[in-house]
Amino acid sequence: MAAPGSPQEEDECVSGAQLIAEALKAQNIEYMFGIVGVPVIEVAVAAQASGIKYIGMRNEQAASYAASAIGYLTSRPGVCLVVSGPGLIHALAGMANANMNCWPLIVIGGSSDRNQETMGAFQEFPQVEACRLYSKFTARPSSLEAIPAVIEKAVRASIYGRPGACYVDIPGDFVNQQVKRNSVKYVGCCPAPPISMAEEAAISKAAAIITHSKKPLVIIGKGAAYSRAENSIRKLVDQCGLPFLPTPMGKGVVPDNHPYCVAAARSRALQGADTIILLGARLNWILHFGLPPRFRPDVKIIQVDICAEELGNNVKPVAALLGDIRAVSEQLLDQLNKKLWKYPSDTDWWKDLRAKMQSNDETSKALSLQKRLPMNYYTVFYHIREHLPKDCLLISEGANTMDIGRTMLPNYYPRHRLDAGTFGTMGVGLGFAIAAAMVAKDRNPQQQVVCIEGDSAFGFSGMEVETMCRYNLPVIIIVVNNNGIYSGLDADTWKEMLKLGEPSA
Amino acid sequence: MAAPGSPQEEDECVSGAQLIAEALKAQNIEYMFGIVGVPVIEVAVAAQASGIKYIGMRNEQAASYAASAIGYLTSRPGVCLVVSGPGLIHALAGMANANMNCWPLIVIGGSSDRNQETMGAFQEFPQVEACRLYSKFTARPSSLEAIPAVIEKAVRASIYGRPGACYVDIPGDFVNQQVKRNSVKYVGCCPAPPISMAEEAAISKAAAIITHSKKPLVIIGKGAAYSRAENSIRKLVDQCGLPFLPTPMGKGVVPDNHPYCVAAARSRALQGADTIILLGARLNWILHFGLPPRFRPDVKIIQVDICAEELGNNVKPVAALLGDIRAVSEQLLDQLNKKLWKYPSDTDWWKDLRAKMQSNDETSKALSLQKRLPMNYYTVFYHIREHLPKDCLLISEGANTMDIGRTMLPNYYPRHRLDAGTFGTMGVGLGFAIAAAMVAKDRNPQQQVVCIEGDSAFGFSGMEVETMCRYNLPVIIIVVNNNGIYSGLDADTWKEMLKLGEPSA
Amino acid sequence: MAAPGSPQEEDECVSGAQLIAEALKAQNIEYMFGIVGVPVIEVAVAAQASGIKYIGMRNEQAASYAASAIGYLTSRPGVCLVVSGPGLIHALAGMANANMNCWPLIVIGGSSDRNQETMGAFQEFPQVEACRLYSKFTARPSSLEAIPAVIEKAVRASIYGRPGACYVDIPGDFVNQQVKRNSVKYVGCCPAPPISMAEEAAISKAAAIITHSKKPLVIIGKGAAYSRAENSIRKLVDQCGLPFLPTPMGKGVVPDNHPYCVAAARSRALQGADTIILLGARLNWILHFGLPPRFRPDVKIIQVDICAEELGNNVKPVAALLGDIRAVSEQLLDQLNKKLWKYPSDTDWWKDLRAKMQSNDETSKALSLQKRLPMNYYTVFYHIREHLPKDCLLISEGANTMDIGRTMLPNYYPRHRLDAGTFGTMGVGLGFAIAAAMVAKDRNPQQQVVCIEGDSAFGFSGMEVETMCRYNLPVIIIVVNNNGIYSGLDADTWKEMLKLGEPSA
Amino acid sequence: MAAPGSPQEEDECVSGAQLIAEALKAQNIEYMFGIVGVPVIEVAVAAQASGIKYIGMRNEQAASYAASAIGYLTSRPGVCLVVSGPGLIHALAGMANANMNCWPLIVIGGSSDRNQETMGAFQEFPQVEACRLYSKFTARPSSLEAIPAVIEKAVRASIYGRPGACYVDIPGDFVNQQVKRNSVKYVGCCPAPPISMAEEAAISKAAAIITHSKKPLVIIGKGAAYSRAENSIRKLVDQCGLPFLPTPMGKGVVPDNHPYCVAAARSRALQGADTIILLGARLNWILHFGLPPRFRPDVKIIQVDICAEELGNNVKPVAALLGDIRAVSEQLLDQLNKKLWKYPSDTDWWKDLRAKMQSNDETSKALSLQKRLPMNYYTVFYHIREHLPKDCLLISEGANTMDIGRTMLPNYYPRHRLDAGTFGTMGVGLGFAIAAAMVAKDRNPQQQVVCIEGDSAFGFSGMEVETMCRYNLPVIIIVVNNNGIYSGLDADTWKEMLKLGEPSA
Repeated sequence: MAAPGSPQEEDECVSGAQLIAEALKAQNIEYMFGIVGVPVIEVAVAAQASGIKYIGMRNEQAASYAASAIGYLTSRPGVCLVVSGPGLIHALAGMANANMNCWPLIVIGGSSDRNQETMGAFQEFPQVEACRLYSKFTARPSSLEAIPAVIEKAVRASIYGRPGACYVDIPGDFVNQQVKRNSVKYVGCCPAPPISMAEEAAISKAAAIITHSKKPLVIIGKGAAYSRAENSIRKLVDQCGLPFLPTPMGKGVVPDNHPYCVAAARSRALQGADTIILLGARLNWILHFGLPPRFRPDVKIIQVDICAEELGNNVKPVAALLGDIRAVSEQLLDQLNKKLWKYPSDTDWWKDLRAKMQSNDETSKALSLQKRLPMNYYTVFYHIREHLPKDCLLISEGANTMDIGRTMLPNYYPRHRLDAGTFGTMGVGLGFAIAAAMVAKDRNPQQQVVCIEGDSAFGFSGMEVETMCRYNLPVIIIVVNNNGIYSGLDADTWKEMLKLGEPSA
Repeated sequence: MAAPGSPQEEDECVSGAQLIAEALKAQNIEYMFGIVGVPVIEVAVAAQASGIKYIGMRNEQAASYAASAIGYLTSRPGVCLVVSGPGLIHALAGMANANMNCWPLIVIGGSSDRNQETMGAFQEFPQVEACRLYSKFTARPSSLEAIPAVIEKAVRASIYGRPGACYVDIPGDFVNQQVKRNSVKYVGCCPAPPISMAEEAAISKAAAIITHSKKPLVIIGKGAAYSRAENSIRKLVDQCGLPFLPTPMGKGVVPDNHPYCVAAARSRALQGADTIILLGARLNWILHFGLPPRFRPDVKIIQVDICAEELGNNVKPVAALLGDIRAVSEQLLDQLNKKLWKYPSDTDWWKDLRAKMQSNDETSKALSLQKRLPMNYYTVFYHIREHLPKDCLLISEGANTMDIGRTMLPNYYPRHRLDAGTFGTMGVGLGFAIAAAMVAKDRNPQQQVVCIEGDSAFGFSGMEVETMCRYNLPVIIIVVNNNGIYSGLDADTWKEMLKLGEPSA
Repeated sequence: MAAPGSPQEEDECVSGAQLIAEALKAQNIEYMFGIVGVPVIEVAVAAQASGIKYIGMRNEQAASYAASAIGYLTSRPGVCLVVSGPGLIHALAGMANANMNCWPLIVIGGSSDRNQETMGAFQEFPQVEACRLYSKFTARPSSLEAIPAVIEKAVRASIYGRPGACYVDIPGDFVNQQVKRNSVKYVGCCPAPPISMAEEAAISKAAAIITHSKKPLVIIGKGAAYSRAENSIRKLVDQCGLPFLPTPMGKGVVPDNHPYCVAAARSRALQGADTIILLGARLNWILHFGLPPRFRPDVKIIQVDICAEELGNNVKPVAALLGDIRAVSEQLLDQLNKKLWKYPSDTDWWKDLRAKMQSNDETSKALSLQKRLPMNYYTVFYHIREHLPKDCLLISEGANTMDIGRTMLPNYYPRHRLDAGTFGTMGVGLGFAIAAAMVAKDRNPQQQVVCIEGDSAFGFSGMEVETMCRYNLPVIIIVVNNNGIYSGLDADTWKEMLKLGEPSA
Repeated sequence: MAAPGSPQEEDECVSGAQLIAEALKAQNIEYMFGIVGVPVIEVAVAAQASGIKYIGMRNEQAASYAASAIGYLTSRPGVCLVVSGPGLIHALAGMANANMNCWPLIVIGGSSDRNQETMGAFQEFPQVEACRLYSKFTARPSSLEAIPAVIEKAVRASIYGRPGACYVDIPGDFVNQQVKRNSVKYVGCCPAPPISMAEEAAISKAAAIITHSKKPLVIIGKGAAYSRAENSIRKLVDQCGLPFLPTPMGKGVVPDNHPYCVAAARSRALQGADTIILLGARLNWILHFGLPPRFRPDVKIIQVDICAEELGNNVKPVAALLGDIRAVSEQLLDQLNKKLWKYPSDTDWWKDLRAKMQSNDETSKALSLQKRLPMNYYTVFYHIREHLPKDCLLISEGANTMDIGRTMLPNYYPRHRLDAGTFGTMGVGLGFAIAAAMVAKDRNPQQQVVCIEGDSAFGFSGMEVETMCRYNLPVIIIVVNNNGIYSGLDADTWKEMLKLGEPSA
């Protein structure tokens, strides 16, 4: 058989399904999640045959969440394969989540046969249009011949610039249609994203501000994790002696047990810092928009981001460093090293932070050691923590479960935590765990995947336990059952609802 | 306390949550399905307090499917209540399904606080815009004062004309905001939809064609079921002696065991009919677009529909009767009665149909009685049938499970069958069953709800078994396990996949 | 040559352009307006060759306005033919205006060659999606073979139900592509819209309310004009002695000089009526939403509309009559005639209205006779009025020019007035005039077309004077020059702007 | 009076209109184009009062084109101010054009009063949603207080990253509403866009490829012009002896009469080059997608772009340099200078190009000197050229007029040519000329603005001659009248149309 892309026979034919599979493989796609059915069954079969790992899930919603995690974990997008109409609509959830998290994702949706369009075809829907709000790029190849180029463009768009979701629509009649190989426009694998750096003037300015700061703080976002900036950021923190704070999925870029980590004094750190080096984190709700009263009104933000339009959102930075987080971190590090500058470890700022950290640690420890029923969250996590391997991949969702778990369970490695993320999405848990387990199986078979769920959160994707079993994926799921679907419900409201005599939840 | 809508005190205040609940109650909304969380908890609490039955589900997807069934069963829309961002996106599935089925549905979505818009608020998303493709009407009230009017308009739009889904967006800051009662613009309950009839000339023309037909056929769609046309259509069939064929959810408008039902000779009936009276059914994929080879090229279609734009889709009707299905059926009946016309029971057409029915019945009976393992579908349904009460409400989804089940399991009453419907939606099963059980509990506590699911179909919403248990809903679920997520997969493909050594599904 | 639709030779081929032209002709399309260019030149040529009148305009914006008026004047939509990208975007204006006015319109847009899609093709744009917000139906035929069916569906959707705009997208490569005639799916001309009527119970209820009313008022909207209801409404007014008020484009359904016309006491009539028969008019901004203080809070609205969803907007009607305006007017007339009911001509209501009309007439006459410079609007229209033929077709836009002109210039025939309409669109003038002149030329060559424009309004489409000259269209244009682009600007603001030393307008 | 942004009195109030004007002024907005009317009159008045130059146009379409040119000419976006509904829809044209050209633009649209939304308000339309396809950012401030922040975000988004259009929606009731100054969230002027550079490794790789090339070619796009890269690119060309080719609006970055300009051998240069340095130009239809037969199949593209997602479109580059065009050009120049490399001037490639240029020049000169009627295009432009000042700002549109004019009329300075651009937009001419004249008046009063239009192109915006007169703008307009609205029409088609007896155009 001729190698894809190098046909030997003029007359050799290839089906649409085969072309899709080959095109994905040519783009180094490794994982595909989905639910098959008319018209995409043959696409899954061809993908498997070409060496892509296909995981059949129970609901496209969970499949789309699973696929979205792949890109974050591996730098190459996962694929979510869905049927027409409802199948695609179920998968919008994962596209939205990926796009908000700035994670690459490819969704491939079968659609109605073209010759039945406008006639009320089976599951007919304007799918390309439906994906517009949730994606960076959404298109239907105009012919079988165009499939490889459109898939390359989708993969490239998903990882170049700020990553995000892309959609490729495949009319049902494409799947089994045949075309001669030599009429197909093959394209090679798109390279890793181009790297850009900040201009020297901006770096100098930033360095000058940092070296004059009294109360500096580094904030590490999941953009830093995505860009594989861990080595340079760790050096930056180490060599310059800077206190740092990770965002939820920024945890582990520098280990949580690093002495300069001030996560245990998060509020104090945010409120007190006079200068913040913001590395791949957005000043959105997670960081209280960078505004008072959670931040000083005169805080100087040195903002490092891959997306120009992000620079200046909500707060005007004193220095706006546009570029790849890893590359710019290195630029900053070089510049500060040239100055032989290090933030002293005996400043009032450090003393204040350390005191607050100690006090907070004591409070949480006291809570952890409480012996009463029902157990409080701190006790739960205190005991879980003791059994977690350092390199396990932690998935977490739920309200209190996720929030308190984040403070109690340390991460030691980058990209080892997956949670509800920027979009605060409930329902990602088991899909994420399946994706993580697949990646672990291939790259680090000893690695454990641990999924810690609130009971309400678990309900969104609990059926995917079956998928885990079917594929024999060694995921540990811990459900923290606070017996409440209403996670945010205060006790009084709850009582009031119970008085109504009907189970509210 | 003052009655809603008739405030006694000028200074009395009311919260947004309260206004929403009162407005829904004023529109005779009875059921609300959803998942609470920030910012809609108080809306659910207020709805419960006002007497609306709130059912807390496990996933907004299933909640939206549940709510969509309410409108079909009760003529008044159910409400799906969801949180912002991902919560709403999960519920698009039910909106799409309702809209395609022409069923009324109200989705109410919390959204970000307005003063954080454009800043990266928690779960910020353009929700009104996101619902455009899935709804007849989508809007955000501009103030608390406008809530009752917008909700009335949404409810009205959902049931007037061709029914469909509507969306109302509620900014988070509305929920607990207070406003004086006397500034609120209250509106009364919108009346039942106005009824329109076909013009007399069209009725006369239709009647003339029917009375001259050699091979007439009545096709009964779920539009006929929705419009409560069962009495007039039954009389039409009875008094005129017409063979009839129900669409999947048109089953039961006239009982399946009626002697004039030719469902057992479906293909023959469609192919042979020279004149078709199409009552609230669309010539879409379910009816093979009304085109050859499944229909005669010269078939005369008398098309009855509530939606003018539907008339003439795919086939040009000889008579286009625009109006309410019930009203127009009565017009037709009156006209045919005046002519004292009845289709003879001894025509070749009847003979042909009866012969084909008998032969098909024998085949399916033979299959039913096969004794081998694994059981075939016919055997399964043969035994199930014996235990189903005549008035049970049947829910069904899956590929073969639904298709063969439809032919094997009779319906005796209208609106007693819920399935994947026009949009072919997988995942509706348990949501539909929960809705049906809630309605049965209130209206006919003896009625059983039976949910027959393919094993793949079950996986979409299987977690909602917990919801059924929590609310103590007596639903019987039968999973027909063909051990295949790939329902449409032929054996050879399957074998090929297995050869790949990895579990494909 | 074989007649379109009845090919004689199996091998005869036909181009996409030819198919479009034939399909439009088969749907009785008479007029096409547009600007040609790549890729639609051949479409215009083929349309001309097939007997469709093609008018080459100067800007697609004006072309789209022209085409939108055709449907209102002739009951069959005009076509606007545009090139890709900017050409289509310019034409969105006419689609929006048609859709808001509930007028049928077909826009046909060329688009990029399909094999260059996603590559940055010439004027590549998602055109089908771009038309969504402005249309009832928007689609691209999936092949040349599907062109006739999609065009029939577009034409049908544009005139069935509530009329509106539809869009058909034609990829550039379709235009000259050839296909065998016998592979094309030909469809016949879609019939005139099906007529629906109100149910008898609603008619009886309405009649009972009318006969008990003390201060009745008939409001005649442009929906009544569109439905050709003039004869039945005139009889209703005459035989029942009812005062009536036309909306701007409802003028002429019953002549403005009819003794029962109370337009000269418009505000009084609206404020005083206890019962309103609303015939094809919406309770939107033009009718002050039907709300106090412009209407009585207890006014009883008998609402007659072709669109179910319109019934109940803003005010809950006492009777909602769903159906064709002409048909329902006849139903009402029959019912009232059976009751031998006539509203007395000597009631206080009539006295009040007549007194107010006389007083208003005197005021406007006094203004008309003022002799000073600059002339006031009343004087202008007073003199214009004397020279207008009774059957001329009046086009009017501008702020004061349109508003005062409406009260001063009578209409004697239905559909003889075109103005800014429901959407308040500035820029429609010359396009409307060109459309009107084309229709007049064919149907009533003696009829004059008179276009009365504010000077600001004229500026939007003034270049189309050249089009009028090129086609030798005898349009009379009167520009009422108040030297202001800021039509709504009060004198003080104006002075303030002038003080700034720069010409503001 | 207190300075904007520094209120002295707690109780001082400010209107929405005033806030908009101040916010625009604070963002260094200089020019506003529009048509006033309800509800934006006061916005224009306030803008004028605050020192922004307001130009009242005749059609929002032309106003939006005018405003879009400002950003390209001045690096700070122009504003287009429009009324609700049709006004905004007319302005979508300019948004589309700006977005496709990657030019910054701010459109501010009045919209309906919020308390009438969903009721059928005057010109009610979902305007924020309507702008989605045409913009980078589209939003409505949620309150008066939020206006400055939303306007800053819009301006920032329009110029950061790849520039484009942004939309800000202003409900009518905001305009005259008052708010206390000290409740407003003021934000300062957003700084010039952050500059990013390519990583060193990519620069080195690119330099190595260039120095090994046999047939190099520099292509200069309008992105290079936008980024003010003229000095570095001129040095690159000069010091390295590289042949270069400008795209239409890339003309003048290096003067057209530079000895290394090979525009006169455009096709030969594209077809022959083995290595192309692509500076701010896209491989779209204008550059034949970078594909054979217009390019060598093995051509090595060194692609320099500010937009990561652009890199790799249609052709896989050998080096992808992500960053600001000016900055990256300097990086390249530095690197090549370090290598002391210069492309020899006596290569076969140069000989081939020079021979082709000479031959083409002779052909065009011969055409220019033809003396016959009607004059050919070359003769026309030959004579125009003699009278054009070197530093005039040329605007051009039309088909042949623009295409041949581009080759015949040289540009000597960057950003001195404006034409139909990436989107091939007809109708931009007079709007662009007005914008250019306003900018010239302020920055270089001696500069002439010359607008060369095909007669069809002129028709789109010809009415704006009145605007030019009203503002006394010294624009020279030359209409090249080929008597054809059908610019692309070949002679035979034309004759065929004339035979039909009706003026076709």
